[in-house]
Amino acid sequence: MNEKLTIQTHRQGLMEITNQVREVVERSGIQDGLCTVFIQHTSASLTIQENADPSARRDMEAWMNRQVPENDPLYTHTAEGPDDMPSHIKALLTSTSLGIPVIDGGLALGTWQGIFVWEHRTRPHSRRIIVNIQ
Amino acid sequence: MNEKLTIQTHRQGLMEITNQVREVVERSGIQDGLCTVFIQHTSASLTIQENADPSARRDMEAWMNRQVPENDPLYTHTAEGPDDMPSHIKALLTSTSLGIPVIDGGLALGTWQGIFVWEHRTRPHSRRIIVNIQ
Amino acid sequence: MNEKLTIQTHRQGLMEITNQVREVVERSGIQDGLCTVFIQHTSASLTIQENADPSARRDMEAWMNRQVPENDPLYTHTAEGPDDMPSHIKALLTSTSLGIPVIDGGLALGTWQGIFVWEHRTRPHSRRIIVNIQ
Repeated sequence: MNEKLTIQTHRQGLMEITNQVREVVERSGIQDGLCTVFIQHTSASLTIQENADPSARRDMEAWMNRQVPENDPLYTHTAEGPDDMPSHIKALLTSTSLGIPVIDGGLALGTWQGIFVWEHRTRPHSRRIIVNIQ
Repeated sequence: MNEKLTIQTHRQGLMEITNQVREVVERSGIQDGLCTVFIQHTSASLTIQENADPSARRDMEAWMNRQVPENDPLYTHTAEGPDDMPSHIKALLTSTSLGIPVIDGGLALGTWQGIFVWEHRTRPHSRRIIVNIQ
Repeated sequence: MNEKLTIQTHRQGLMEITNQVREVVERSGIQDGLCTVFIQHTSASLTIQENADPSARRDMEAWMNRQVPENDPLYTHTAEGPDDMPSHIKALLTSTSLGIPVIDGGLALGTWQGIFVWEHRTRPHSRRIIVNIQ
């Protein structure tokens, strides 16, 4: 079973989509299986991270921005703007697909885990995500 | 099929769990399929790495500790101790889930590949891992 | 269904294998499912990245080489050459397995996404990849 989600991002940073993925799993009626979340982009990515304290997310974003800065003289791929090449590198370091077990009809996430889209571009984007359930 | 494993970590660093995952695959009796290993935490993570020479593991740990140091003035999420925020970033850079083909009733790992839990916290923890086999 | 591919790499860097994976999916005849690509090595890895402009790939390679240099005095695992330990760290930061939905008999990749093997060693290697389709 595949269901497509469209996620409207508002700015650069982590945006939680746990509820949207959970609803797809519930609609599927599948009790035990595997849920794969896949993002069809190379300048936004996925991660499972702590969803309790927003300060952890802000620190991850700040660390990543320091590690992969804009306007690095190393970049030659600059035609699409200063946030484009950092976006690809940040996507490289995080995930394009996530596999999450489904148990008793629900996502088997840990207590503090949430599923996030990480928008790496500065401007808002409409991001296509596929939720695949086996 | 889902089976839960509890892994007791002893200290910060990589800890091999290939045998525990292999045993779940063998118990399942599945000949050809997909094994997904999922960790239900955001301050410990998974990786498949070389399991022959412990010096490669030590170097990976040392590199990661230099890259993501404790007490970085950038961190604001510090209430849970100096090893907490680095743990989330290290988890971000490695994996929360791994998909491994099952062929002829066994994990199709390469000759030098082992499955590892990476404990990012300083103190020992009891870590919950789900092995999902399709 | 599992099919093994052997990919001959020519040098350090990203090498696109989208067509080879696509052919396995088409041969399988599976209409809707999940394709997992798995590499049986720890000094080469996988990633899904932009496949339109080669300059993006070159910048990713250059960034990674600066981030994980050869001959870092931190390394103790040096017996297999100066490119060996950086290879393991680069593999750690990228992916050993990728899950991609199969929809209507094809890989559900985004418009600009390609599947790449990243050879991290300097010399050419023969790399074993498994394409698993559920």
